[in-house]
Amino acid sequence: MDTIKKNSETLEVVIENEVNEDQYSPSPNDVEGSSSRVHHRRRPSLQLRRSVSEQDATPISIVFNPEAETVEVSNAADGCNAIDCTSEPPVSDLNLLLAATYVEDARDGRHSDFKVSERHLKLYHMYQSKWGQGALYFIIVLHLLLALFEKPAVPSLEVTYWVTMTIEVGVMCFYLFRLTHISIVTPLTRFWSDTKNLLILILVGLTFLDMVIYIGLIESGSYGVRWSRVLRPLFAVNFPEMRQIRRAFRNLRRTFPDVVNVLFLFFFSLAIFALMAFKLFGGRGLQWVDGRPYFETYWDSIFDLYVLVTTANHPDVMMPAFDESAYYVIFFVAFLVICFFIYMNIILAVIYNNYRKHLKNEVRKAVFSKRQQLSKAFEILALNQEGKRVITRNRFVLLMRFLDNQKNPALINVLWIVLDTDGSDALEKGEFLKLADLLNVEVSEVVDRRTLIGHYFPYIYYSGPSQILCRIVKHKLFQVFFDVLTLVNAVVIGISTSDSTWDDTAEWVFLSFFMLEILLKLYVLGFRRFFKRMWNVFDFVVIGAAFILGVAEAIADDEQESRLSLDVLLVLRVLRLVKIIGSVGRFKVIVHTITKIVPSLLTYGGVIMVFYYMFAIVGMESFQDLVQYSGYDIEGGSDLFCSNEKLENSDFWHERYCNNNFNDIIHAMIVLFELTVVNQWHVIAYGYATVTVSWARLYFMLFHLICVIIVLNIFTAFVLEVFILEYSTTCEGNLESQMEKKIQEMGLSFKKKKSKILSAASQEDLVVTDSESSDSEDELDSPHMKATSSDDGEVTQGTSDFYSKDLSGETDVRFHITKRLKNAEVLLQKMFEKELEVDELGPDIVNLDQDLEDEARYLASQNRTLWSM
Amino acid sequence: MDTIKKNSETLEVVIENEVNEDQYSPSPNDVEGSSSRVHHRRRPSLQLRRSVSEQDATPISIVFNPEAETVEVSNAADGCNAIDCTSEPPVSDLNLLLAATYVEDARDGRHSDFKVSERHLKLYHMYQSKWGQGALYFIIVLHLLLALFEKPAVPSLEVTYWVTMTIEVGVMCFYLFRLTHISIVTPLTRFWSDTKNLLILILVGLTFLDMVIYIGLIESGSYGVRWSRVLRPLFAVNFPEMRQIRRAFRNLRRTFPDVVNVLFLFFFSLAIFALMAFKLFGGRGLQWVDGRPYFETYWDSIFDLYVLVTTANHPDVMMPAFDESAYYVIFFVAFLVICFFIYMNIILAVIYNNYRKHLKNEVRKAVFSKRQQLSKAFEILALNQEGKRVITRNRFVLLMRFLDNQKNPALINVLWIVLDTDGSDALEKGEFLKLADLLNVEVSEVVDRRTLIGHYFPYIYYSGPSQILCRIVKHKLFQVFFDVLTLVNAVVIGISTSDSTWDDTAEWVFLSFFMLEILLKLYVLGFRRFFKRMWNVFDFVVIGAAFILGVAEAIADDEQESRLSLDVLLVLRVLRLVKIIGSVGRFKVIVHTITKIVPSLLTYGGVIMVFYYMFAIVGMESFQDLVQYSGYDIEGGSDLFCSNEKLENSDFWHERYCNNNFNDIIHAMIVLFELTVVNQWHVIAYGYATVTVSWARLYFMLFHLICVIIVLNIFTAFVLEVFILEYSTTCEGNLESQMEKKIQEMGLSFKKKKSKILSAASQEDLVVTDSESSDSEDELDSPHMKATSSDDGEVTQGTSDFYSKDLSGETDVRFHITKRLKNAEVLLQKMFEKELEVDELGPDIVNLDQDLEDEARYLASQNRTLWSM
Repeated sequence: MDTIKKNSETLEVVIENEVNEDQYSPSPNDVEGSSSRVHHRRRPSLQLRRSVSEQDATPISIVFNPEAETVEVSNAADGCNAIDCTSEPPVSDLNLLLAATYVEDARDGRHSDFKVSERHLKLYHMYQSKWGQGALYFIIVLHLLLALFEKPAVPSLEVTYWVTMTIEVGVMCFYLFRLTHISIVTPLTRFWSDTKNLLILILVGLTFLDMVIYIGLIESGSYGVRWSRVLRPLFAVNFPEMRQIRRAFRNLRRTFPDVVNVLFLFFFSLAIFALMAFKLFGGRGLQWVDGRPYFETYWDSIFDLYVLVTTANHPDVMMPAFDESAYYVIFFVAFLVICFFIYMNIILAVIYNNYRKHLKNEVRKAVFSKRQQLSKAFEILALNQEGKRVITRNRFVLLMRFLDNQKNPALINVLWIVLDTDGSDALEKGEFLKLADLLNVEVSEVVDRRTLIGHYFPYIYYSGPSQILCRIVKHKLFQVFFDVLTLVNAVVIGISTSDSTWDDTAEWVFLSFFMLEILLKLYVLGFRRFFKRMWNVFDFVVIGAAFILGVAEAIADDEQESRLSLDVLLVLRVLRLVKIIGSVGRFKVIVHTITKIVPSLLTYGGVIMVFYYMFAIVGMESFQDLVQYSGYDIEGGSDLFCSNEKLENSDFWHERYCNNNFNDIIHAMIVLFELTVVNQWHVIAYGYATVTVSWARLYFMLFHLICVIIVLNIFTAFVLEVFILEYSTTCEGNLESQMEKKIQEMGLSFKKKKSKILSAASQEDLVVTDSESSDSEDELDSPHMKATSSDDGEVTQGTSDFYSKDLSGETDVRFHITKRLKNAEVLLQKMFEKELEVDELGPDIVNLDQDLEDEARYLASQNRTLWSM
Repeated sequence: MDTIKKNSETLEVVIENEVNEDQYSPSPNDVEGSSSRVHHRRRPSLQLRRSVSEQDATPISIVFNPEAETVEVSNAADGCNAIDCTSEPPVSDLNLLLAATYVEDARDGRHSDFKVSERHLKLYHMYQSKWGQGALYFIIVLHLLLALFEKPAVPSLEVTYWVTMTIEVGVMCFYLFRLTHISIVTPLTRFWSDTKNLLILILVGLTFLDMVIYIGLIESGSYGVRWSRVLRPLFAVNFPEMRQIRRAFRNLRRTFPDVVNVLFLFFFSLAIFALMAFKLFGGRGLQWVDGRPYFETYWDSIFDLYVLVTTANHPDVMMPAFDESAYYVIFFVAFLVICFFIYMNIILAVIYNNYRKHLKNEVRKAVFSKRQQLSKAFEILALNQEGKRVITRNRFVLLMRFLDNQKNPALINVLWIVLDTDGSDALEKGEFLKLADLLNVEVSEVVDRRTLIGHYFPYIYYSGPSQILCRIVKHKLFQVFFDVLTLVNAVVIGISTSDSTWDDTAEWVFLSFFMLEILLKLYVLGFRRFFKRMWNVFDFVVIGAAFILGVAEAIADDEQESRLSLDVLLVLRVLRLVKIIGSVGRFKVIVHTITKIVPSLLTYGGVIMVFYYMFAIVGMESFQDLVQYSGYDIEGGSDLFCSNEKLENSDFWHERYCNNNFNDIIHAMIVLFELTVVNQWHVIAYGYATVTVSWARLYFMLFHLICVIIVLNIFTAFVLEVFILEYSTTCEGNLESQMEKKIQEMGLSFKKKKSKILSAASQEDLVVTDSESSDSEDELDSPHMKATSSDDGEVTQGTSDFYSKDLSGETDVRFHITKRLKNAEVLLQKMFEKELEVDELGPDIVNLDQDLEDEARYLASQNRTLWSM
C-alpha cells in the first residue's frame, strides 16, 4: 500500500518526458541504445526512485481537460502513427490507478469489488495490501490456536477462560473491522448480497451469544460447552482472501449431489449384505478372537461390514466364518469385490468425472473474469492508432509504475517486449490480455556477485592459490565427491548398530568433511550466493548444529538429550540424498512435476484442516478425559485400561491405544490423522463406543465418510488432473518459457551456454560450473529445466549480459527468472485456458457489468472522463 | 462350421433369382409389398431353408469365367444403374466365403491369419468354431484345475501323481493339436514369427522336461518339485483366443516402464525414511506391543515402513514412539503424507496417464485392423455402379448367408436398411464399414407369445375370471405390492433374533405369498416368458428351494443342515431388493452404467487370476504344511500355535490366522485374496517369515507390489476411463440406438407406445403392462432405457408389427433387440472410434498386406479371380 501511495504522490501529475521514455527501444537489436542509461544504475531499486525524482525536475505537467476528450481521440488517431509520437494524450492518474487495480486484481485472481473513486480505490488497495492480509492471516491462526489454551487444553498451556475469551473478543473485533472495511469499499447492495459477509456477521453473532451463555453457565457453577468453537474454521473460509479453499469447498459442494446417488446405492448394498451377514452368521454361536459374539445385531453387522469396506478389519472379520467353513469365504469375497473393488472405484470415477466438470466451469469463470478485468484496464488506457485500439509504450510504463510491487525499468522493458509479440510497439487487446499471466512469472535480479572477501580483500581472493581453490570448488567433481560421501555416510548409518563404537569416529570424520565443504563453499561463493540455495542453508544448519552439539556432547560426555538431537541431525543429513536423486536425468521430470504440484495440494491441506478442526472440537467435547495415558506399567493399578475399566477386554487396551485420546487438540488432531489413514480406525471407534455409547461409532463413520471417501477422493481427482496436465505440458512451451526466450534473446538470461561465457568472464567470478544448481529449489521450479534439458549436465550459472553480451562488464544488474511456486489458481487456469478463445471474454458477469455502471456514474458526478481516449 | 458347410452346399453355385430377391424393398414405405411373402413364414429358420430349396428349382447357375472378368465389370457398371438390375455379375462362393470370413473376423476382433484357399478357409472356420473354442476353454480350465488334485492337494481330492500327469500329457497333446491346426491354416512364415506360438511350444517343452525330472526324482525316492506348474496360466494367455487378457497384459507391460521410474523414487524415499526411522527409533529401547524390538535392523525398518505405506500397521507402528514423545508423530505424519497420500496418488496418476495413452493406441490399431478387414471384404464383393464401387443388396444377402450364425431374411433386410443410410439401395464403402459393429448388436426374435395354457386350454385361459386375473397380475400395483412385501420381509429378517419364535411363522406367511406370486405369474405369462426374465428364474429357484427345504425341515424337524440352507435362501431372497432399487429413476443411470462395465472388468479378473495362480503355486511349494489349522481348542496341545511352535508369540497365532495357509490351492487363493485386500498382510507375512526365514517377506512384498500397486491401479484406471465414457455417452445416440430407431421405424420394435397398441391387441395377449420389464436383466442391458426413458414407468411389452402395424395379426415374428453384454473390446473401440475418420484405414498392417499377396498368389494358381468385379 505504501508503495502505491508513494508512487502516486511522486507521479501524481507527472508524466515523464516521452522522448526520454522512448529510449526504451522495443526490438532486441535496438536495446544497445538504452545501455548508457542502464549503465549507471547499479542498484536498480534505489536508482528507480532517484530517476523518478530526477525527472521530477522536468516534468510535462498536463492539466487534464475532460471536455477536450473526443478531440484528443481523433488527434491521437491521426497524429500517433509514428512510434515516437509525443502528442499522445495524457492519462489521469485516477484512470491509471483504476487500470492498475484491475490488472492487479486480474493478476491475483480477485473480483474487482470496489466503488470507483480515488478514496475508495485507495481504501481498496489498503485492504488488499500485504499488511492487511498478513494481519488477517495472523488473526485467523491465532483464533484457531486458541483451542490449545482452552479447556480441554494442552496440559502445560491451560489458562483461565477469561484470557482466551478476551482474545477471542479482540479477534471478533478485528473481523468486524475488516468487514467494515469491505463494506465501505464495496457498493452497498453488493456487500449485502454477498453470503460470505452475511455469514461472517452471523458467525460473529453466534460466537458472542455462545460466550455470554458460557460465562453465565460457568459463573453459575454449571457445565458449559463452547459450541461456537466448531464454527471457527468457517470464519477463515468466508473471508475473500481464502479464495482457494473456498473454491475447493465450492467444488466439493457441487460434486457432492452427484456422489450422493452412488453413496446411496453403496449404503443400500451394504445394508443388504449386512442383512445377509446377520442372518448367515448371527445365530451360529461364532465369536471373534476376543470372545465378542459375531454379527450379533443388525447395527453391528452394518458397522462391521462398513469397516470391512475400509478393509480395516480384514481378514479378522472373515476368520471365524472361514474356520467354520471355507464356503463362507464366498460371501466375503463377493462383498469385497462389489463394495470395495468396484464401488470404491466407481465412487472415485464419479467424483473425478464431476470434479473435472465443475473445475472446468470454475476455471472458465475465473479466466473470463480475469480477461474482463484486463479488458477494462485496456479500454481505460487504450488509444486509437491506425484504426486499432492499442496501448502505447508510454502508457504501459505509467501503468506498471502504479502496480503495487515497484518494477525495474529494464524489467518493464522486458515485459513490453514479451507482450508485444508482433513487434508493432503497441499492445493490442489480445496481447494485453496476457499481462496478468506474465506478472505471475516472477523475475528476480542478480545484483552483485562478488563475495565479501573478494570485495574487501581482493588481493587474497584473487591470488593464484585462491583462484585454484575456486576452480576446484566449482568443479563438477568437487560436488560429485561430496555426493558420494553423503551416500557413504548414509550406508555407514545404515549398517551401524547402536552398540558399535567405531561409528562414532566415522561420524566425526564425515562431519569434518562436510564442515570443510561448507567452509570452502562459503569462501568461494560468498555469503549471499551460498545462502541463496535452499540446500546450502539446509546443510549449514544441519551440519553446523551437529558440529556444535557434537562438541557440547564431547564436553558434557554423557548427555542423553544431545544424543537424540545429534541423531535427528544425523538423520536429516540423509535428506541430502534427495538432492542427488533429483539431479538424475530420468527422474527429473517426475521430481519436477511433483515439486510443482505440491503447492497446489496445500489447498486441500486447508480443506482437510477445516474438517479436522471441526471434528476435533466435537471429539474433544464428547470424549475428553474418558481415556487417559499414563504409561503401561502393568503392575501399577492406575495405569491399567487407560484409566477406564470399561476398556478391560477391548482391543483398544490390548493394542495400547491409550494415547489416542481427545484430551487436547493436539492429541485429537493426531487421532483424526490416524482415522484418515483408516487402518485400525474401528479399534479406536469401538474403544470410544465402549466408554460412551454404541452410537458414538457414528462420529467415526461420519468422519471416514467425509474425510476419506469424499475429500481424499477429490484430492486424488485433483492429483490425477493436475499431474496429467503438468506431465503432458512439461515439454510444451508455455508462457514462462516464452518470456524466458525473449529474455534470452535480450541477453538477460540467467543461464547461457557455457562456451559463450568462459572467455569473457574469468575475472569477474561470475562463472560457476555448478552442477548443484539443478538441485536447488530455485532450479527445480524454473522453466530452464525444460528449455535447456539437453545441456543440463553442464549447466552454467554465470555471466549474463544486460542488453547484449558486451554489456556484461558495464552493469551488475542480472535477471534471474524464477517461477513463483505456482498456486493452485494459476495452475488450474492454465489447465483449460487453451480451450478458450483468446478474445473471448465470456458471458458478462453481473458484478463486472455493475462495475462499469458504477464507474460511469461516479465519473459523471466527478465531471471527469473514464475513457481517456 | 456345420452351418457354413450346409449353406455352401446348397448355395454353392446357386444365385437366387434377383427379381424374387428384390421384393425385399429397401425403404420403410415399401415394406408392405413383401408382407405376403413374410406372412407364410411362421417359423423363419425352417422357412429360410425351405425357401432356399424352393429356389433350388430355378437357379441361375452361372459358370464362372475368369477371362470374362473385366468385360463383366464394364457390363455391371453400364447395365446396373436400375435397382432391379438382374445382369449383375455373379460372385464365386470362394469369394463369398472369403468376404464372410473377413467380416466375421472384423466382428469378433480377430486377426485374419489364414491362407486363401477353400480348404484353408474351411479349416480356419473349423478352428474358430464354437466347438473348437469351447474345447480349448474347457481344456485350459481343466489344466488349471489340476492343482486341486496334485500334491499339496485339497485333502479329499488328492490322487497319485500318475493320474494328474496323464491328464496333463493329454492337455499338452491338445495344445499341440491346436497349434498344429493354426500352423496349417496360417502362412508358415507368419506362424513362426509369432512369439505366441513359439512360447506355447517352449512351454510344452518345459512341461515335459519338468515331468520327466519329477518322475525321475520321485521314483528314485527324492523330493521333487513340479516347477512347471507356475507356467500353466501362460498357456492360457498365449492362445489367440485370449485376446482380451493378452491385451490387458500388453497394456500392463507397456505401462510398466513408465511406472518404474516413479516406483524407484518411491523406494528411494522409503529407503531414506527407513534410515531415519532406524536411527531415530532403533537404539532407544522401544518395543512393539508384543515385546519385539522397535526398528531393530535396517531391513526391518524398510519392511515396517513399506507396510506403513499400505497403512496395514498404522497406527500400531507409531504408538511406541508416540508414547515416548508426541514429537515423533511428526516423522510418521511426514512419511505418510509423502509416501502414502502423495506418492500413491502420483503412481495412480502415472499409471492412469500411461494406461490411457497405450489404450488409445491399442484401440486405434484394433479399429484400423477391423476396417481393413471390412474394406477387403468390400473390395471382394463390390461392383462399379454409377462410377462408385458399391455392394448390391443381392450380394449383401448372399454374404449374410455365409456368416456363421444363419440370419433371418427379415433381419438381413433390417441390417441392409440400417446400413444403407442414404437410401441408395447400395452400400458404399463407408456404410459397409459399419457392418461389424452392427453385427455385434444382437437381435433376437419373439416368436409365439401365447402361453401353453392359453394354447391348449383357451376356453379356460380366455374366460372372464381368468382375464380379470391376468389384468390384475399385469397391473402395476401387483408388482408394487410384492415389492413392498419383499421390503417388509427384509425388515422382518433384520429385526428378528435367533431366539425369537414368531419369525418362523412370519417366514411361512412370506414364503406362501411369494409362492403365490410365482404361480400367478407362471399362469399369466406362461413358462417361456416367465423364465425369460432373470429375476423370475432367480425367484423361482430361491422361493421354490426354500419351500421344499422348509417342508423337508418341517418333516425332519431338527435338521441343522437344512436350517443353514434355509437361511442362505432367506438371505438370497433379500437380493430382490436390488431389483427394486434398480428401477428407481435417479439410480438407473448409475446401475445401468455399472451393469454395463462389469463384463469389461472380467478381463482384469483374468489378469489377476494369472498372477494369483502363479503366486499360489510358488506359495504352496514354499510354505505348504508349515502352518496347520485344527481348531483352537487351547486345552488340547496339538492345536496350539497352528501346529508350529515358532508361532508361539506371533500375532499370526494371536489373531487366529492358522487357516491362512498354503496347504492347498484353495487356501492359497484365499490367502492371496486377503493379501490383495492388503489389511493385516504384514501379520501373515511375519507369520511365514517366522516359520521360514526373514526373507520370506519378500514374497509378500512382491505380491503386494505387483497385484496391488500395479494391477489394481490399472484396474482403477480402467474403471475411471470406462465409467467416464459410459456415463457421458449414456444420453448420446450410438450405433445400437440407431439400429433401434430404424427397426422402430419399420414397426419391428420390441416396445411401442402403449396407446398405439392397446386397441389392437387385447385378444392376442401380447400386451403386458409390465413394470418388471425395466428390472429384468434384458432390460438393463437394452438401449431402450435411454431412448424411452421418458415413459419407463409404464413401459409396454407387447404387440409390435412386422413391417407395418396391420401385419401384427398376420405374423408372430417379432424382433426383440437386446444388447449383448458388451465385451471390453467393443466398449474400448467405441471409446476412441469417434476420433478416427470414417474412411481412414490407418497405416497398413504388415500382416494384412501379406494377406492380400497370399490371396493374389493363391488365386492366380487356381486360375480364378479374387476381385469379382
